[in-house]
Amino acid sequence: MEGKLITLEGPDGAGKSTQVSLLASALKARGYPVLVTREPGGTRLGEEIRGLLLNPLYGEMNHVTEAMLYAGARAQLVGEVILPALAAGVTVLCDRFVDSSLAYQGYGRGLDLGMLRAINGFALKQLGSFLTILLDLPPEEGLRRAAAGRRGDRLEQEDLDFHKRVRDGYLALAASNPERIVVVAAAAPVSAVQQSVLKHALAYLEGKRKGASF
Amino acid sequence: MEGKLITLEGPDGAGKSTQVSLLASALKARGYPVLVTREPGGTRLGEEIRGLLLNPLYGEMNHVTEAMLYAGARAQLVGEVILPALAAGVTVLCDRFVDSSLAYQGYGRGLDLGMLRAINGFALKQLGSFLTILLDLPPEEGLRRAAAGRRGDRLEQEDLDFHKRVRDGYLALAASNPERIVVVAAAAPVSAVQQSVLKHALAYLEGKRKGASF
Repeated sequence: MEGKLITLEGPDGAGKSTQVSLLASALKARGYPVLVTREPGGTRLGEEIRGLLLNPLYGEMNHVTEAMLYAGARAQLVGEVILPALAAGVTVLCDRFVDSSLAYQGYGRGLDLGMLRAINGFALKQLGSFLTILLDLPPEEGLRRAAAGRRGDRLEQEDLDFHKRVRDGYLALAASNPERIVVVAAAAPVSAVQQSVLKHALAYLEGKRKGASF
Repeated sequence: MEGKLITLEGPDGAGKSTQVSLLASALKARGYPVLVTREPGGTRLGEEIRGLLLNPLYGEMNHVTEAMLYAGARAQLVGEVILPALAAGVTVLCDRFVDSSLAYQGYGRGLDLGMLRAINGFALKQLGSFLTILLDLPPEEGLRRAAAGRRGDRLEQEDLDFHKRVRDGYLALAASNPERIVVVAAAAPVSAVQQSVLKHALAYLEGKRKGASF
């Protein structure tokens, strides 16, 4: 039987990495074979591309270039990791995926959403339905958490307005893709978020809820 | 007055780098301000991407990823180097450009030409008309010359059939873009090729011949 893909989305500071780990443990405890990966990166080549994307030194990066690098790393991750794992019956959890490109480059930076949908459509052409869990957090809170944790990378240096547009973009994506994207309030305590994420994940894995393709 | 862009295309071994240098010198001697650049690369970020694209270690590179990386480096080159130079009245000569993606990834590797045209259309959106000089060479001769010159990079390790498809692809592109692409037989002596390249370049720069946008 084919495995299923679940992606976690949301701003830095929303607790995606923590929730991906907790979800992986909970699913493994229920007998699911689980593979955890992340974007950008997740492959040898993708991690090199990630290094370019997140390096604060590349302030001159063209927005179209940025979109292409994300989509390129994504195509590599899909072809090299996700599709083979799904074919082997593995449940794949991905920390960020295509909605990050739409939210950050599209809604955040103002790149043409049609272009982003088109190039990511090429990157995801072979991928079927998946589920996306959006960890929603007010941008002030996301920035506060991210700043407390570590030195800001290139994206975190953007201003608050940018992060507000990203949040509104995520919510707009959720509203227009209700079969694929579920929203979980990430300002709640970690354990409450964890329960909600697990509930949605199990509903999808057990076939009680449909996902959708990009 | 706006500068103009001339791109040189053709297989490895066709003498593109030599001809770009010779053309730059001849144009400078005639008073044209000239900027020479190359693809993939030509910018700090683009050279990093070039390093990934040409590294024989990345044999696992997904074809869609490859296309995205080329288009991403191209968008960076256009935005950071080519458009500002053209706006400043400079003649820009580029060693490889968008036709390389169509010839190598499209005709060579069999990627969907519609996808390649679409993603490169995004990368070149702001660029107007340009001229392309195709240095045409039978693939056996190109491979022989390239092998004699240096150790093969990742693309040169492809087989002869691949290079035949690339050549046929270049010629098909020239046939369907007659206003933009001129074909020069590169098996001729360097000085004869040089004269032909200069003749076409001057015709374009002096307005006797129109180019076309991508």
